[in-house]
Amino acid sequence: MAPRTDHDETRVRIADVAEELFRRLGYAKTTVADIAAELGMSPANVYRFFPSKGAIVESICSRYLEEVVVLCDRIADRPEPAAARIEALVLGVLDYHRRIVLREQRIHDVVVIAIRENWQAILAHKDRIRTVMARILADGVRRGEFPGLDAEDAASALLSAGTRFCHPMMIADHLDDDLDAEARQMLRYLLAGFATAGRPAG
Amino acid sequence: MAPRTDHDETRVRIADVAEELFRRLGYAKTTVADIAAELGMSPANVYRFFPSKGAIVESICSRYLEEVVVLCDRIADRPEPAAARIEALVLGVLDYHRRIVLREQRIHDVVVIAIRENWQAILAHKDRIRTVMARILADGVRRGEFPGLDAEDAASALLSAGTRFCHPMMIADHLDDDLDAEARQMLRYLLAGFATAGRPAG
Repeated sequence: MAPRTDHDETRVRIADVAEELFRRLGYAKTTVADIAAELGMSPANVYRFFPSKGAIVESICSRYLEEVVVLCDRIADRPEPAAARIEALVLGVLDYHRRIVLREQRIHDVVVIAIRENWQAILAHKDRIRTVMARILADGVRRGEFPGLDAEDAASALLSAGTRFCHPMMIADHLDDDLDAEARQMLRYLLAGFATAGRPAG
Repeated sequence: MAPRTDHDETRVRIADVAEELFRRLGYAKTTVADIAAELGMSPANVYRFFPSKGAIVESICSRYLEEVVVLCDRIADRPEPAAARIEALVLGVLDYHRRIVLREQRIHDVVVIAIRENWQAILAHKDRIRTVMARILADGVRRGEFPGLDAEDAASALLSAGTRFCHPMMIADHLDDDLDAEARQMLRYLLAGFATAGRPAG
């Protein structure tokens, strides 16, 4: 048996080549046989590493989503007020996906397929983003920006309200709108809600 | 020249028959020739009333969207507090589109085509929904629920934040989620924001 790292390295090589082919030919026109030929492997050998073309797509998609999480984590670590970091996070995710849509249409197509088919990877990703949001909100509670706020509950609400600005399909369908301005407008009210919703009534 | 009402009646008849065919055969498989045959008309005659299959779709879609507006107007007219009406409106739109997705998959497909192609009809619809929302919010300002709130600005924010719950494609992709509970959760914070965002700072 090959050691684990060789296996992982081969998976990365297959995903690299597949990504390049998807970019050049589009997802639909790229076959596992094409990917295998480009690597000088047999299709059967590719299938040892990925059970299907869909699994390769999931892997490529996960790399992009990982970049989004790293971006969000970096924003969460900044020293500025929690409200400013929440706004920066939403605008950062919007900007990331918009760049993919504009510059890498075929990678965007792959992301859309993953969204519509590989629910587990997407659900896991949304959970990670929600966790970063909850971390910032909890810090805002500690700093007194959001007194008494349930950070986990508020993070779920934020993720829901942010759909228009963070969902790749919504971004792709509204490239002509000023989504940055709209996101700031919406967040102004939502953050005002976070600042008061946890206070005792009266 | 035929009087205006005859022309309109024929348009309605064509749209009725087209809707029935879309429902039975699906949008892609229904041709203008099929629609014409069903009506005992020539395709050329159908084209006198609608320039394209897309225009027929837009007309069918507008009828469904009209029902959504009527539903929202009815909720806006209720005597209850503005916050409760806003929640009822979002849940009402969600419920309407979810029923179409679940019971009329082929009509949903037509709505999705309209969303992705007939931007004018959809933009006009969104503006009408925003107007109803602004009317409820302005009433909330008068009643003291949302002191000092800019109702127009807040309605735009509400429309943005409601994307996950009011956009037919988002609803179709999340039928397994408890969208009603999520909408209530999100609105609790947004409405708290509306109640305080218009107050003088300090």
